[in-house]
Amino acid sequence: MKTKTAYLALTTAKKVDIVRITDKVEQVIKESGVKEGLVLVNPVHITAAVIVNDNEPGLHSDYLKVLERLVPYSADYRHNDTGEDNAASHIWRQLMGHQVTMAITDGKLDLGPWEQIFYFEFDGQRSKRILVKVIGE
Amino acid sequence: MKTKTAYLALTTAKKVDIVRITDKVEQVIKESGVKEGLVLVNPVHITAAVIVNDNEPGLHSDYLKVLERLVPYSADYRHNDTGEDNAASHIWRQLMGHQVTMAITDGKLDLGPWEQIFYFEFDGQRSKRILVKVIGE
Amino acid sequence: MKTKTAYLALTTAKKVDIVRITDKVEQVIKESGVKEGLVLVNPVHITAAVIVNDNEPGLHSDYLKVLERLVPYSADYRHNDTGEDNAASHIWRQLMGHQVTMAITDGKLDLGPWEQIFYFEFDGQRSKRILVKVIGE
Repeated sequence: MKTKTAYLALTTAKKVDIVRITDKVEQVIKESGVKEGLVLVNPVHITAAVIVNDNEPGLHSDYLKVLERLVPYSADYRHNDTGEDNAASHIWRQLMGHQVTMAITDGKLDLGPWEQIFYFEFDGQRSKRILVKVIGE
Repeated sequence: MKTKTAYLALTTAKKVDIVRITDKVEQVIKESGVKEGLVLVNPVHITAAVIVNDNEPGLHSDYLKVLERLVPYSADYRHNDTGEDNAASHIWRQLMGHQVTMAITDGKLDLGPWEQIFYFEFDGQRSKRILVKVIGE
Repeated sequence: MKTKTAYLALTTAKKVDIVRITDKVEQVIKESGVKEGLVLVNPVHITAAVIVNDNEPGLHSDYLKVLERLVPYSADYRHNDTGEDNAASHIWRQLMGHQVTMAITDGKLDLGPWEQIFYFEFDGQRSKRILVKVIGE
């Protein structure tokens, strides 16, 4: 059995931003030497989500527009009474899905034709990390 | 350590449809010979979700009604400017939860009394696959 | 390879309640002897969610307020025609995210600075269980 732990570091240019990370996850798998197993991709920050969906900018803006409509950033939240302004960011990350676990088959991410892994940042412009944990053989 | 990879193939009769797949996942586990471990169940298509909830048709229609109310299929989405009409399907799958990882204990799915695994198809009537990855011993 | 299965038992005081379970998950990992691996934390009941977010009571009330606004408990649901009154609980658990898989590194939960694991109960005041499955080496 083999495992590998990596932390992808990034700082987004915008407060709300979307970054494709498929290739970086693939690189960690390659370095792990695991041929069959699982890879967990988990943002270690709680105002961000790792999701799998389409690499299509129009869809990405649709996601952000829907989140803002359902849970407006500037509405009244008790969390923001603590001095933060990011309550909606915490909520958006739950609605979008938090994290993914993907399969490794024949030493590669076992992806469908359109599956791409993205980091959705909802409170960026500062140093963040994404945990990539590989387990298998 | 043992692993097994299977792809469940299906084509739903309706564009939006819900299919119980618990038994098919159980069958893959049985074939894997794994007694203790994890199983990832991941739709490899990005307009579908694999979820765990109740095998109750009324609840299933409630889910679909809520999704349509929160994110109407026929609203205006930038993704649909690409020639697609399924932007809402991509968004619904994120709200419902994308994928599940379940435990294998004593060679079986370790389920609570009402846990059943479902494939929620939001853009069906064409050939789709669900990845089942077993890892354990 | 090592695995360990534990079931955390709890009964919440309130019908809708939030319980921090990070330490209990950590304890299971310690008992497992696993140094590198994954831990699945899955509520075996389908009106509850296990999520990772902030240990901040204001945010917790924000989550509940948003869920009630988007999917009102007392609205009309077909599931409630079966004699239940908890259709919204089933839907809330999907919107919040159902379950988490976390990494184990150096024998401990590999958490970011603010990551805490919570059990969100949406239909409590009765005996419930949370499955904790550890796999690794």
